[in-house]
Order: sequence, then structure tokens, then C-alpha cells
Amino acid sequence: MIRIAVLGAGRIGRIHGRNAANHPDARLVAVADPHAPSAQELAAATGAEVASLDSVVERPDVDAILVCTPTTTHADLIERGARAGKAVFCEKPVDLSSERIESCLATVEKAGTPLMIGFNRRFDPNFASLRRRLAEGEVGEVELVTILSRDPAPPPVSYIATSGGLFRDMMIHDLDMARFLLLGDEPVEVHAVGSSLVDPAIGQAGDVDTAAVLLKTARGRIVQISNSRRATYGYDQRIEVHGSKGMIRAGNVHRTTVEVATAAGIAADPVQDFFLERYAEAYRAELGAFLAAVKAGTACDPTGHDGLKAQRLADAATESAQTGKPVRL
Amino acid sequence: MIRIAVLGAGRIGRIHGRNAANHPDARLVAVADPHAPSAQELAAATGAEVASLDSVVERPDVDAILVCTPTTTHADLIERGARAGKAVFCEKPVDLSSERIESCLATVEKAGTPLMIGFNRRFDPNFASLRRRLAEGEVGEVELVTILSRDPAPPPVSYIATSGGLFRDMMIHDLDMARFLLLGDEPVEVHAVGSSLVDPAIGQAGDVDTAAVLLKTARGRIVQISNSRRATYGYDQRIEVHGSKGMIRAGNVHRTTVEVATAAGIAADPVQDFFLERYAEAYRAELGAFLAAVKAGTACDPTGHDGLKAQRLADAATESAQTGKPVRL
Amino acid sequence: MIRIAVLGAGRIGRIHGRNAANHPDARLVAVADPHAPSAQELAAATGAEVASLDSVVERPDVDAILVCTPTTTHADLIERGARAGKAVFCEKPVDLSSERIESCLATVEKAGTPLMIGFNRRFDPNFASLRRRLAEGEVGEVELVTILSRDPAPPPVSYIATSGGLFRDMMIHDLDMARFLLLGDEPVEVHAVGSSLVDPAIGQAGDVDTAAVLLKTARGRIVQISNSRRATYGYDQRIEVHGSKGMIRAGNVHRTTVEVATAAGIAADPVQDFFLERYAEAYRAELGAFLAAVKAGTACDPTGHDGLKAQRLADAATESAQTGKPVRL
Amino acid sequence: MIRIAVLGAGRIGRIHGRNAANHPDARLVAVADPHAPSAQELAAATGAEVASLDSVVERPDVDAILVCTPTTTHADLIERGARAGKAVFCEKPVDLSSERIESCLATVEKAGTPLMIGFNRRFDPNFASLRRRLAEGEVGEVELVTILSRDPAPPPVSYIATSGGLFRDMMIHDLDMARFLLLGDEPVEVHAVGSSLVDPAIGQAGDVDTAAVLLKTARGRIVQISNSRRATYGYDQRIEVHGSKGMIRAGNVHRTTVEVATAAGIAADPVQDFFLERYAEAYRAELGAFLAAVKAGTACDPTGHDGLKAQRLADAATESAQTGKPVRL
Repeated sequence: MIRIAVLGAGRIGRIHGRNAANHPDARLVAVADPHAPSAQELAAATGAEVASLDSVVERPDVDAILVCTPTTTHADLIERGARAGKAVFCEKPVDLSSERIESCLATVEKAGTPLMIGFNRRFDPNFASLRRRLAEGEVGEVELVTILSRDPAPPPVSYIATSGGLFRDMMIHDLDMARFLLLGDEPVEVHAVGSSLVDPAIGQAGDVDTAAVLLKTARGRIVQISNSRRATYGYDQRIEVHGSKGMIRAGNVHRTTVEVATAAGIAADPVQDFFLERYAEAYRAELGAFLAAVKAGTACDPTGHDGLKAQRLADAATESAQTGKPVRL
Repeated sequence: MIRIAVLGAGRIGRIHGRNAANHPDARLVAVADPHAPSAQELAAATGAEVASLDSVVERPDVDAILVCTPTTTHADLIERGARAGKAVFCEKPVDLSSERIESCLATVEKAGTPLMIGFNRRFDPNFASLRRRLAEGEVGEVELVTILSRDPAPPPVSYIATSGGLFRDMMIHDLDMARFLLLGDEPVEVHAVGSSLVDPAIGQAGDVDTAAVLLKTARGRIVQISNSRRATYGYDQRIEVHGSKGMIRAGNVHRTTVEVATAAGIAADPVQDFFLERYAEAYRAELGAFLAAVKAGTACDPTGHDGLKAQRLADAATESAQTGKPVRL
Repeated sequence: MIRIAVLGAGRIGRIHGRNAANHPDARLVAVADPHAPSAQELAAATGAEVASLDSVVERPDVDAILVCTPTTTHADLIERGARAGKAVFCEKPVDLSSERIESCLATVEKAGTPLMIGFNRRFDPNFASLRRRLAEGEVGEVELVTILSRDPAPPPVSYIATSGGLFRDMMIHDLDMARFLLLGDEPVEVHAVGSSLVDPAIGQAGDVDTAAVLLKTARGRIVQISNSRRATYGYDQRIEVHGSKGMIRAGNVHRTTVEVATAAGIAADPVQDFFLERYAEAYRAELGAFLAAVKAGTACDPTGHDGLKAQRLADAATESAQTGKPVRL
Repeated sequence: MIRIAVLGAGRIGRIHGRNAANHPDARLVAVADPHAPSAQELAAATGAEVASLDSVVERPDVDAILVCTPTTTHADLIERGARAGKAVFCEKPVDLSSERIESCLATVEKAGTPLMIGFNRRFDPNFASLRRRLAEGEVGEVELVTILSRDPAPPPVSYIATSGGLFRDMMIHDLDMARFLLLGDEPVEVHAVGSSLVDPAIGQAGDVDTAAVLLKTARGRIVQISNSRRATYGYDQRIEVHGSKGMIRAGNVHRTTVEVATAAGIAADPVQDFFLERYAEAYRAELGAFLAAVKAGTACDPTGHDGLKAQRLADAATESAQTGKPVRL
């Protein structure tokens, strides 16, 4: 039984905390959050106890910590957990600075403790199935990857300002997905463009809300990613890979399978529009993979280095969009 | 070069006349219609001459006639054509009376001339492909056949009164399709129900506008057919066959492939709503098959006997719906 | 907190037991099953205690019982539960004999206790959404209902022999669904045909494995249902309703959204092939509805009378298929 | 009646020649091709006469010429036609050199004669419907355009060598489509990457076979285009536009609507794999639009300037892919 503490009882902490509490190989021991009512509510719902953020990392009755606190605290908590010998699962990103990620990973490497980064989409059953079939060669060699992700609505401008920008905050998921689908062939050339088309306030805050990236890998494969902070029709998450033997894609998940035909046409339901609903199963599978690796003593995947590489791609995209020039890695 | 005369220059006569005129193996020689302007218009558009209905059947410079006149004239014209040694293509049905069809077919048989009945849906590329794959065993043995057909809007009540009723006028196409898909296993038990739900005037005229039939074949296979005289979303024409090794179906043809996603859902275009558009390619292929058989001296398919068998099923369905009892064949 | 005992810890008892244990308004108090290991396993997993089937129905610390035992015991357990003042949730059917169902319902009525019958498909999110939109008039008046249900593989022949036959064992779900979708307009005429096409042993056991039913309602609406005990492509569960203003349908749930395009075509994943997976959410919602009604003291839905009416339709279909004649209700 | 001469009786000349011959407002007068049998065959099939390429442009009994000869002859023939007062329809591109296009357009402008460039995809019913609905504001402001086009198989390497390269030969259609969909907002920044992944011989010939372009417009809109010279599953032609109020897309046209479900999944037919089949209706509508403009004396659309602008984008993409740097226009 792996004893777990969850750090941060916000939206994503509640998800991981409940999944840990329901997992047959885990027990949720403690919940920590500076906002006491959040910690108490999650603790009550899961039978865990409330603990202070300061003390919980080093507790001897905790085997693993789930870092679900604000981004600025991630690297420190990972390092403290590693030094205390804990297995650490941390939500992306490790830090908004690649340098800080590097020093953090060095600490973890020295400690020799497990670290897994929360790129949840790798565990979505649809995308995981696509990746498995890709790796099995079902469509031959990967040639062109198209990844598309659109949020239902932009976050508050106040959040935008501290988010690191669209490429680091939102597109980082797609950049990790691109690496996941390229099966080891790393992007070496990054072209990015971005605009503020959804909300001028986002542009005034120095960020973009609509963006696309064009990547070329060491072996000449091509990746296209596009993002928008707003999609009227739901949370749009799609992948398509063109290979030498065929094409494979994974589409959206609709709310129901109901369709209505009238003189206006045949209408399917909108796609699920909330990421916690769309990726509920992904979060479960993700925590399951972390716990399985910890239990078996095998390597966590995705690793801290996956987090670093996605961050470097996001840095490159940010620079390219700002300078209008491609960045080579 | 097969020399053709088209009898009847209405909606369907114009289709067959133009297809004959455009066919590399045929020449449209003459157009006959009691309504002179219709005959003249089609003749002008195709380079054919206008002829009288009385004289055209026996003309020595005509090899084949296309009977596109009102139903009540079909059997007589077929017989005259056969006696004159012409190949005859006749729109369904041969007659509203099965007895009259039988005597007509006897005349044709005696003459030994080709006769093909216009069950155009057999030649629709979608349905023809389904049938070919079915015959090749792609889904194993046929077990359950579901055929669905819905008109965009009911015909005038004046037409209904002389149509022979929904089962003979509309469902006959589906009954023929059922036989086509059963690959030789004939229906022996017919259950039918019908209602007037679309327009009370149809009920007052003694007919139904919504109906379904349940058939059982000699070998125990089951067929379901449903019809409605009105579908707000277009001309709905679908087939599904459940077999021992899988399921095969052919869906509707949409106006375009455009889809629009908004908060209301994902909407595809309505289906094509006019039978002449939906089955344009079927009519071309149908006439092509007739001409190919005439040219090669091989048997026409579907035959007059297919027309008769479909009619008997329609008679049985009409009786069953009226008496509330199944009819055995 | 509603205190629950689950009677029967087989496949379906485990589903309901776990759903009860996870529900915020319920506590699973006891599990009873003559097969001790099954009872122990479910009890251990949910924190409930093991109890004897004999004693559990009358226990004072139990408010509601979930009857998940073999069909032959249902009516007795319902009556005992009702007499003991318990709310009862019972899997379909109440009994294979309509007469026994009637006497059982009379007992429940006298007791004035809540009884809900487990027609789980009413609670499937897809079908429930379809029904809600139908009731809201989105496609106008219901005219033609088509329900299709196909099992991945037939049950053992030994089960078939005691099942009451396909119409009572399998199609009863579709017959209930038909009533659910007809919004109060009851079927009055039942035509059924059945064949043994999947496995001759099923025919030898006196049952059919492929069947279809044609219903006509008091107001002339038409229902088509078809069943097969085997579908190579998964658990096929579809509904389509043609209404005066349009058509609404609910399709299958595929395993993933992945599609692969090759020279062979564009292939989507097979549909989910296990009913416990396909209807997992339906079972949760169903128990939730039962608990909500018990908590609020409102009427359970579907009621025992819904169970009786579906059973009578199944009886009628069985008779019609055997005699070759329609049955009027 | 517009009197037409077709110049070039190859694959595309035959299409336009037959469409002209079948058009009610046109008469195909003459067919010219240095390869006499090709000219004779098309002339025989359409009732036109064979003429020499040299003489046909200036013939007084010709009102309009359709230029379907090799690219290197286009600009000269356009100029000769314009000087002779003919309306000219010319297949894309006017020339592989933007400078030559400019001088050619100057000549046409001086002559004041109609010139239309053959960007056939604008006339595809699916794409035309999408564009019309876009222009009507159905999805609000255009924000992100994704265009995808994949050929079934690469052309011979010998053709590649004289084609001007993938961006000018193949992607020019998509670049024109991008401009068509942007409703007047012109691309000002072009990023391109290309690789030879399909066939090394294409790379050795100095070209790429897999490529993508990222465009940014004057108003900040973003366009993604991707091309492959090979798709195992057919001729893949798709468009998707993300707008402020929704998303609109147009998908592929499948060979039939047939779907087969087995344990392997649900398989739809491959997409149509030949451009002459996929765009048959587009070619008809395109010639119809040319003839309608000539008849009415209104402006042709797309114009020679559309041809020039697409060519400049293709030049920019070619340069960007070669230098690894974006090109600003």
C-alpha cells in the first residue's frame, strides 16, 4: 500500500486526491493546502487527515507526494520530496524557467527518487490507443503530425499574466504530445506565430490567444500544432498522424451519441466542454501508471526530462512568435 | 447502335430520354407524349424527333422502347412492344393488378423479347456496392435486413387515390430491394401495419402514410421495412443487413460534406431531398444495364418476374394492413 | 443515509452493491448470497457485512433491498421486502409469469412501499437524453420507433432453457424502451417473428436467437424492434425515432475515437462489447434515481406496473412468434 | 452561343472540352493539340473540328479559348488570345515565373479581355458551400484556417523536375484556397518546411514530397497548410476554419456510403482517389462560371491577379523551405 500525500487541494488536487483514495494500491494519508477549507473538504471526502504544507513533505508515513500547488512552488517541493526520499508526481510544468527545471532535475537525479510529470493527455484512452497503434507500425513511418487543441473559453486575464504565456501554459501539452507521437525523433526547428484575436485584453497583457507552431524534426518529419483560447463548441482536442502506410486520428468525445435530423441538417451533440470531464479517465490512468511504477520500482514515464524538453520547445515557440524567426534546437 | 424511343416525356421520361441520348451505344430516335410541348422539349434537347404514341411502338427504325407513361398504360405498351419485337424497359409497376402483370408477362414470354423493369435503386452505386459485397459473403449469411425509406413530402391526395396505395406505390421499391438482398431466399410470411399520421386527408382517401412490414423468408430470415410519406430532413434511404459475420449498411447521401460546430452541436448538411438528384447515377447505370443486355443478347435484370413478385408482396402487405392478419405466400 | 442490503452478489449484484457503497446518500450495510465467497468478496470490497439471505430482508437496520438474485426468487423477495416495509429495487423481470407479477404487485400495493424495476437502459445518458428531447417535442409527434439490440454472443444453451425465451429474456428491455419512448401511448397489436439462425442448439432448446417485432399503438404509432443473440462487432444498441418534425437517434458507443485510414477504407473502433461497460453509467444513474425517490418519498420510476406491461408485451410476442398470428392487447 | 476552342487535348483538356460541348450556352468549335490522335479523339466525341494550335487562337469564329497546354506555353497563348480579343480560360499556373505572369497580365489588361485562372477547387460544391457560409458570417470572424491536401501517389520524377517544385505545383491550390477563405485579408508572412520522406528520388531531384506552411495575415489570422505526395487511402482534400462563433469544415468524399462492421471495427469506404472524379462537378461549375461571366460581360473570378498572388505565395514558400527563414510579403 503506497501512502500518499496530496499537496494542493484545488481543482486538480481534488482529482488526484480522490483517484489516490480510490486506488487499490494506495492510501491517501494527508491533504495539505494553505486554504484550510479546501484541505478539510478533500480530507473529509477521502478519509485523509489535514496536514500543513510545511510538514507533510518530510512525514515518515508518506511514500509519495502529489504536487498540485501553484507552478511557482513546484520545483522547490519536488526537491524537498526527492531529498526526503519520496516518489513525486508533479503537475506540469516543473517551472516556467528551463534553467530552474534543469537544477531541479539534477537534485532529483542525485537523490535517485522517482519523478513523474503530469502530462495527462498521454493517458487519455483515445490518444493512448492511437500512440500504441502508431508504435506498432499500423500506419508505417510517421511523416506529418497535426495536433489541435482549443479551450472552451480563455482564463481570466489575471491568470494569463502569470501563466508564462500561451505556448508555455497551453501549447506545452501539445508539444509534449508531439514528442510522444514522434517516437524518439526530436524537433530541431520551431516556427511559431501567434495573435490576439479572441480578446484584446489578452494582447494588452502581452500574450496571444490564437497560435500555431510548425516543427521539423532531426529526421525531417513535420508537426503542425494550433491552439485557440476559445471554441464555442466545446473543448476541442484532436490528433492526426499521416504515415507511410496510412493515416490515424483521434477525434473529440461528444456529450452523447444523440443525433437529430431536421430541415436544418443532422446535428450531433457538442463535444464535452470541461477538461476534468474530458480527461477524467486520463487522470485515473495517469495516477495508476505512477503508482504502478512506484510499486514495481520501475522508471516513471513521462519523466522530468520530458517536462524539460516540452518546456524548451515552449520557450522556442515563444521566442519565435516574438521575433518572427524560427528557433533551432 | 441501339435505336430508342421514349414513351412519356414527363419527369422520369426526360431522365431516361437524356440518358439514352448521351449513351455511346444508343441513339434516341423518337419521343412520344400526348402532351405535345413535353415531347417537343425533350426531342429538341436530345435531337430526337417527336412521334405519336400510337405509331412509335411499331416503328421499324426503333429497337427498344422506354415505357415512362402512366401506370395504367404500361401492360398494354409492353405487350405491343413485345409483339413488335422490341426490347422493352418499363418503369415500375407493370400494373396495379398482379393478374394483369401475369398475362402481360405471358405475352412477353411468348414473344421472347427482352423486358426489364425499372427498379432503379438496385443500380444506386451505394446499394449496388452493398449487394455485391453481401453476395461475396463479406458479412456471412444474411440474417436480418432492415430497409428504411422516407419521402420528403407526400404526393397530392389526388395522386394517392389512384396510386394503388402506399405499399404498391412506395414500399414496392423496398420490397424489391428486400428480395434483391435476400439472394434468392423468398419471403413467405408478410405482416404489415399502416397508419395515417402525416395527413388525415390521406387516411380519408383510404390510404396510409406511415407503414411498416415484417417479412419472414422460407429459410427463416427476417426483413423489416418502414416507410413514411414525409421526412422533414430530406429523402431518407437506408439499408442495413445483419449477417453471421458482421453488419453492412448504406447510408444517406448528404448535400455536401460541410459540417458546422457551434454551441448547439456539430451539424452536417441535410440529405439530398429530391429522388431525381439522389438517384441520378442509378438511373444512368440502370439504362446502361438495359442497353448492355440488349446489345449482348443476355437476360435483362430485374426481370418482369421481379416486378410480379414485388407486386405480390405489396398486395400481401396491403391485405395484411387492412385485415390485421399476416399473409402467407 | 439510506441503509442498503444487496441480495445476490453475482455480476449485477456487484455492480449495484458497489454503486450503493459509493453513493453519498447510501450506506451498504449487508451482502447476502448463498454462494459464500461471492458475498464475502463484495462485502470486503465495500465495507459491508455478510448476511444470510433469509435474515437480511427483515433486518431493522436496513431501509432498502436490492434484489439481484435469480429470477425465480424475485417475486417472493419483493413481497417479503414490502411486508417488512423496505423499499425494493429489483432487477427485471419480476417473474416469468405475468400472473405471478400481478399478485406480487398487489402485495406491494397493499404494503404501500416503494418498488422500482431495473430497466437500466432508461438511465443510459444517450437514451435518457434522447427521451428528454423527445418529450420536449424536439422532433414533434412520435410516428415510427426503431429499436435494435444485438448481443455480442449468445448465452449458454443451459441458460436459454430457463430464460423464458428471447422475447422475455432479451427483448423485454426493448419492449420497455418502446413504451418509454411512446410517452404513454400503449401498444395494442403485436406481430412477432423469430428464427434460430445463430446456433441450431438454441432452436433445439425451443427458443429463437434472431427475432423481430412489429407493434402498433392505440393511436396508430408503429414500433419496430429487432434482436440477435450474436453480433461479431460488439454490443449493438441503437434507437431511432421518426417524428413529425424530424428524426432523433442514439447510436453506439465506440471503444475509442480512433480511426485509421488505409487503402482498405476508414476504420473506426468496434463498439463496446460488454453490457457492464456499455451501461456502467446507466447503472449508476439508475441506483441514484432509486435512492433519490426513496429519500424524497416520491414514486419510483420505472414502476412494478412498467415491469408487468413489458412482460405482457413479451408474452404476446412469444405467442405471436409461435402461432404466426398477431396478438391484440 | 459562345464559340469555344480548346487548346490541348490531354487529360484536363478533355474534361473542359466535353464540359464546353455539353454546356447549353456554348459550342465547342475546335480542338487543337500537337498530338493529332488526342485532338481527333476529343473532336470526334464532341462534334468539334480539329485545328492547328497556331491558327486556332486567331480564328474569327472562336469567342473564347481554353488553355490546357503545358505550363510553359500558357503565358504566350494567353497573350495571343487577349490580343485577338478572345476570352481566355487558362489552367493554373500562368507561368512558373512571377515576373512572366506580371508581364502577361499587363498585356491582358491592355487588351481589356476576360481572363480566368483554373483554380478548380473554388468550385467544388463542398468547398464552395463552406466559403459561402463563411462569407455569410455563420462562424463569425475567421481566425485559424487549416487546409490539408494529399495526393494518392507522387507523379513521375521526370515530371517533378520541371514542375517548379511541390509548393508551386501542388500547394499552389491550397495557397489559393487560403486566400479564397481569408475573404480579402492577405498573408504577409510565410514559414515553410519540406522534406523528402515519400521517395528519395524526389529529394535527389531537388524537390520535397512532404511539406507544411504556416501563414500569418495582415490582420493576424493564421493559416496552416500541409501536403503529401502520397496517401495510401485516397485523394485527401480537407478544409477547416475556426472562427469566432464556431468551426466549419468540409471533409472528403467517400466512394460510397457503405460501412461494414466486424470484430475489426466499423469500416467506411476509402475516399475517392482520382482528382478527375473528386472534382468532376467542380470542373463543370468552373467552366459554367467562366461562360456565365463571358456571356454577361462581368469580371471573371478567380482572376489573373489571383493566379499571380498564389504564385508569389508559392515562391515565398519555396524560398522559406530552402533557406529555413520566413519570407515577408
